[in-house]
Amino acid sequence: MNYSNLEDTICAITTGGGMSAIAVIRISGNKAIHITNSIFSKDISNVESHTIHFGRIMDKNEIVDETIISIFKKDKSFTGEESVEISCHGSIYIQNRIIQILIKTGCRIANAGEFTMRAFKNGKMDLSQAEAVADLIASEEKAAHQTALKQLRGGFSKKMQNLRRKLIDFSSLIELELDFSEEDVEFADKNQFESLLKLIKIELEKLINSFKLGNVIKNGIPVSIIGAPNVGKSTLLNLLLNEEKAIVSDIAGTTRDAIEDDLNIEGIKFRFIDTAGIRETTNTIENLGIKKTIDKVKKSTIILFIIDPKININSQLEVLNKVKGDGEEKLITIINKIDLNPKIPAEIKDPILISAKENKGIQTLTKRLLEFANIKELSNNNAIITNLRHFNELQLTLDEINTIIKGIHKEIPSDLLTTNIRQALFHLGSITGEVTTDTLLGNIFGKFCIGK
Amino acid sequence: MNYSNLEDTICAITTGGGMSAIAVIRISGNKAIHITNSIFSKDISNVESHTIHFGRIMDKNEIVDETIISIFKKDKSFTGEESVEISCHGSIYIQNRIIQILIKTGCRIANAGEFTMRAFKNGKMDLSQAEAVADLIASEEKAAHQTALKQLRGGFSKKMQNLRRKLIDFSSLIELELDFSEEDVEFADKNQFESLLKLIKIELEKLINSFKLGNVIKNGIPVSIIGAPNVGKSTLLNLLLNEEKAIVSDIAGTTRDAIEDDLNIEGIKFRFIDTAGIRETTNTIENLGIKKTIDKVKKSTIILFIIDPKININSQLEVLNKVKGDGEEKLITIINKIDLNPKIPAEIKDPILISAKENKGIQTLTKRLLEFANIKELSNNNAIITNLRHFNELQLTLDEINTIIKGIHKEIPSDLLTTNIRQALFHLGSITGEVTTDTLLGNIFGKFCIGK
Repeated sequence: MNYSNLEDTICAITTGGGMSAIAVIRISGNKAIHITNSIFSKDISNVESHTIHFGRIMDKNEIVDETIISIFKKDKSFTGEESVEISCHGSIYIQNRIIQILIKTGCRIANAGEFTMRAFKNGKMDLSQAEAVADLIASEEKAAHQTALKQLRGGFSKKMQNLRRKLIDFSSLIELELDFSEEDVEFADKNQFESLLKLIKIELEKLINSFKLGNVIKNGIPVSIIGAPNVGKSTLLNLLLNEEKAIVSDIAGTTRDAIEDDLNIEGIKFRFIDTAGIRETTNTIENLGIKKTIDKVKKSTIILFIIDPKININSQLEVLNKVKGDGEEKLITIINKIDLNPKIPAEIKDPILISAKENKGIQTLTKRLLEFANIKELSNNNAIITNLRHFNELQLTLDEINTIIKGIHKEIPSDLLTTNIRQALFHLGSITGEVTTDTLLGNIFGKFCIGK
Repeated sequence: MNYSNLEDTICAITTGGGMSAIAVIRISGNKAIHITNSIFSKDISNVESHTIHFGRIMDKNEIVDETIISIFKKDKSFTGEESVEISCHGSIYIQNRIIQILIKTGCRIANAGEFTMRAFKNGKMDLSQAEAVADLIASEEKAAHQTALKQLRGGFSKKMQNLRRKLIDFSSLIELELDFSEEDVEFADKNQFESLLKLIKIELEKLINSFKLGNVIKNGIPVSIIGAPNVGKSTLLNLLLNEEKAIVSDIAGTTRDAIEDDLNIEGIKFRFIDTAGIRETTNTIENLGIKKTIDKVKKSTIILFIIDPKININSQLEVLNKVKGDGEEKLITIINKIDLNPKIPAEIKDPILISAKENKGIQTLTKRLLEFANIKELSNNNAIITNLRHFNELQLTLDEINTIIKGIHKEIPSDLLTTNIRQALFHLGSITGEVTTDTLLGNIFGKFCIGK
């Protein structure tokens, strides 16, 4: 895919596939109005921008559909190019037919994300805003929606551009200094430079740290459900999800694959992972399941450790020790089967008492989950990184900044630091798209849906 | 569902469900602009009809999405009412969120087909045109699309209204005659009346006859594939459909259920029905299959009778006799397995020679199918009935007209005929919606999709 060609007029169905009341076909490019005019029953060559026109789409003399078309003139559209949107009847036949006619009349089918890519190329938004369009479309919960919308509306772009501009100012001073190096002039104030670098470092670290939150917002907070066999892990999962996702039986070892599913609690996505009960077993398939469990648990943010109070407590606590990761996970200990009126083991501190069977104590559990999710930061105005690409570029920028700071301390000559400064500028710039390559654009927009 | 209430302002997602680049939400009713204005970041209370406005949908102070809204003023919209279309980002979360906000601000979710129903109620289209909207959306092939579009654009509505008006003129003369009956005045010229009735009769019969064609356009031409076991029926079906729809094996009696699927040949829909091979068998399930076959074949327009030339011809011909219906079906006899170079049985007249295995002769077969479909009438301008409701009403009208004609011949007094005339007027009027009831509207629009 060539993402540099802005000459073609492109078209695509931009609403959901399949039969529907209406469907919208988007056309963008130099000839959008000219091409539409040639297949439309009314003359739209001189109409105003942002006006709507009722008329028929024609294939020579044959009427294809009665439609409504919206006109967007150059610089006034989403892409920044002349654009037309055709609202047609949502029959699949009609949608395809109109696309065929458009292609016959000079359009090309848009590549994935090509409309947004053009909006970026034409300066309607920067790259991180363009990426937010895809996130916005994919958002399923309030938190993900809000972060994507914040990013679309500028988000941390301005901060990035600001830091980058300051760095550029300094680096031009350094380059200037190099030019005059034989005259021993010192333009760049090293102390001031170091202050700037430290400021940038702090901002970068803040953004990098926000990725952990950004990632859970986008992909959900991973919550593992662990416990000895038959303590009621799958019953609890089904209860939380309100469906029969996991097969429940009295037979120990029923769950082998780690079963995952999302649950939206007050706008926050939790990604629950039901695991195979941990026990010593000679069953090969079950052992594979247990190995998987351990891997999954190590990647979780929250562990729900379920205890059956009627079983030996020490053997159950062994399970926990076997799978626990680096200790950074937050542990919620749950005592299940309280409908049986068991004695609550004294070893367990601050347990949540539930009866998965009788649907008791679940609200206390979800409340605790929300506390542990720690999403207070969402409500304040800090920028949150949700994009892995941004995270990587920020990390690479930080590495360069750290190298430069070290270099200054060691009094390494400026000309050796300029390479690192350029690298830092490159990485920072690639986030907002001030620096791009075709491969980068292909990677980013290739993941978009067609029509966006 | 109350289809009489036009006071509410209604809203619905009108594009295809699921995630997409954009989605369109339609709002229609007295307060469409007022309600949208209260959740939109710009003042749209005084904008022109047919204009587009970029802005944000707000939930109090929270930004929900950046959208484009289209304004349609009263009498200038699809429904005839004040309408707004919101083009939002196609995330399911955003779509649902906007609908929720609209409901909170005074909209009601539209019933199925309610937008089109309002277009009808507000005189933007008659009932048969409104019904064509649903057909147009559902159209999957060229022929179905063309007939629906023709009907949407007026089709036989004018003809219906014309006939009905003439009948009304005459019936008022008859009623007038009844008023003056004691004075022995004769206003209605019986001969002229009879001519009109005959004219109506001819038109009705033409339309009623067109239903057979209309039905095949809409639902496909039913084509049964029959033959003795193992002659290659399922192989042929798979070949025509270009997929593994039917399970093929060497075991006689593999196909038990009648397998159906559609094939689009040059814009015409054929509905192929693969049948159980007909043979004497004691297997109960297979016998049920054979019974089903016979039922299906009796309802087919075209029969593909497949012969294996290596098997006894007479026993195969018996199969045909067993399942043939009233003789109105068109028969295409096919000799399969010509890759084995068999002797072509002399008993078979005008067979099509194929090898389903080697994909030979299939083009000749599809050509013959198109000839037999007899869709020449499609290209001329005759009105075609595709709607079962219209067919029934036309049939009922014709019955009344026939009764009236008979009545005139028998010199039955005018006052006895007026009931039949009124009935004829009622049935004719219910096609275009000049006569409607809430139940009728509920039946018609309840089958529409939401958002139309």
